[in-house]
Amino acid sequence: MPRYALTLEYDGSGYFGWQKTADLPTIQGALERAAFLAADQTVIEVIGAGRTDAGVHATGQVAHLDMPKLWRTDRLRDALNAHLHPQPIVILDAKEVEHGFHARFSATKRAYLYRILGRRPPPTLEAGRVWWVPVALDVESMKKAAKHLIGVHDFTTFRDAQCQAKSPLKTLDMLDVVEVVGPTGPEVHVIARSRSFLHRQVRSMVGALVKVGRGGWAPNEVKAALEARDRQRCAPVAPSDGLYLTEVSYPE
Amino acid sequence: MPRYALTLEYDGSGYFGWQKTADLPTIQGALERAAFLAADQTVIEVIGAGRTDAGVHATGQVAHLDMPKLWRTDRLRDALNAHLHPQPIVILDAKEVEHGFHARFSATKRAYLYRILGRRPPPTLEAGRVWWVPVALDVESMKKAAKHLIGVHDFTTFRDAQCQAKSPLKTLDMLDVVEVVGPTGPEVHVIARSRSFLHRQVRSMVGALVKVGRGGWAPNEVKAALEARDRQRCAPVAPSDGLYLTEVSYPE
Repeated sequence: MPRYALTLEYDGSGYFGWQKTADLPTIQGALERAAFLAADQTVIEVIGAGRTDAGVHATGQVAHLDMPKLWRTDRLRDALNAHLHPQPIVILDAKEVEHGFHARFSATKRAYLYRILGRRPPPTLEAGRVWWVPVALDVESMKKAAKHLIGVHDFTTFRDAQCQAKSPLKTLDMLDVVEVVGPTGPEVHVIARSRSFLHRQVRSMVGALVKVGRGGWAPNEVKAALEARDRQRCAPVAPSDGLYLTEVSYPE
Repeated sequence: MPRYALTLEYDGSGYFGWQKTADLPTIQGALERAAFLAADQTVIEVIGAGRTDAGVHATGQVAHLDMPKLWRTDRLRDALNAHLHPQPIVILDAKEVEHGFHARFSATKRAYLYRILGRRPPPTLEAGRVWWVPVALDVESMKKAAKHLIGVHDFTTFRDAQCQAKSPLKTLDMLDVVEVVGPTGPEVHVIARSRSFLHRQVRSMVGALVKVGRGGWAPNEVKAALEARDRQRCAPVAPSDGLYLTEVSYPE
């Protein structure tokens, strides 16, 4: 059976995350239902690169599936999108891949964007799309704090209690803090890149950076929290609203 | 009574436009309700710079109101926002102005942004925030077409049949067409500036530009449509989803 890799965009607000459950709406469940309909009611499994949490969005999630027959990739994209409609999940791109390709295990890099709106009035147009923090953030201090997290570390402090990864050791390649002009004005973006992340690692790190940005921690207190390797030392975890899985990379 | 100018942001999706009606939700109605509550149940009129249509958004609408007592401007902003909550309307800024200030009549310039998402898959995160056109647009042709509309013209072709302005003559100072990277990828933005606009003028002009961008018109057919001074020659009007009132300017 031919295998296809799909690039996906979705608004995670109304979903209980990627991973399918018996009765709650999930991204994987919606995609498998669309694939089932496109494939004349054959049951098809859809495997994602990142198992995004409830409420987390994606602009570049990747998933793979095996279809019973050969499809033109643009027709497969359009057929799945027609079956997904009007749910806020779309296939941006479909391409045929080799049988050895696995959306999750073949991935060599994942990138996340976290959007923060730091201003006194609450968001309107960007509600559910950003983390609203009702004060201006000290971005320079956040940049300094972020540098302490880059590299190979034991990220136990920034790992959810439910995390099932065997090791808390991860290599964080990038953790950039930048000021950008968003659709409704200035935002602070945190961009994280790693081969893979622990459960809630990005939101835990962003929680710590925002604590610094609000003046609750000096930048080096993030270093101390990391070195403590203690989940109790984590700042409040950032909400799902601002998190986007933006890119998954594979070997050529 | 002291007069205050408010800068407003709102998601117009759920509203029947700016102007209050007896029974439908409107932006003006929501603001007057909030002002009524903030002013211990005194009836207060809120006058806006632009009477945005149903579904049109704002990131920089300006309105004025007279309050029965003097307020610290940050407290007035916060009190109105508390009464507006959880509606998607916020006061970004409040400042005291002279009695001669009038949000609508003192305005010397208005700016609108129109966002277009030109791609085959429908929008998810930006649904209701952009005009989805399911093809890539020819932006160079749109830029050429836009140049024909800049300047002093009789805009009868681009004016709604319901428009109540005395004259169809307007001076369009800017009509820029630019490619930008939006939250979910490339977008085409149209930025329009004028002292004032006719009813549905921006959406009518954007409709014509998109007709050009899709190859349905050559750029100079927009010039011919303008010179015809005939509403029947207008292309389909762009939907409200992509339109934002971004800025209103006043003399110093």
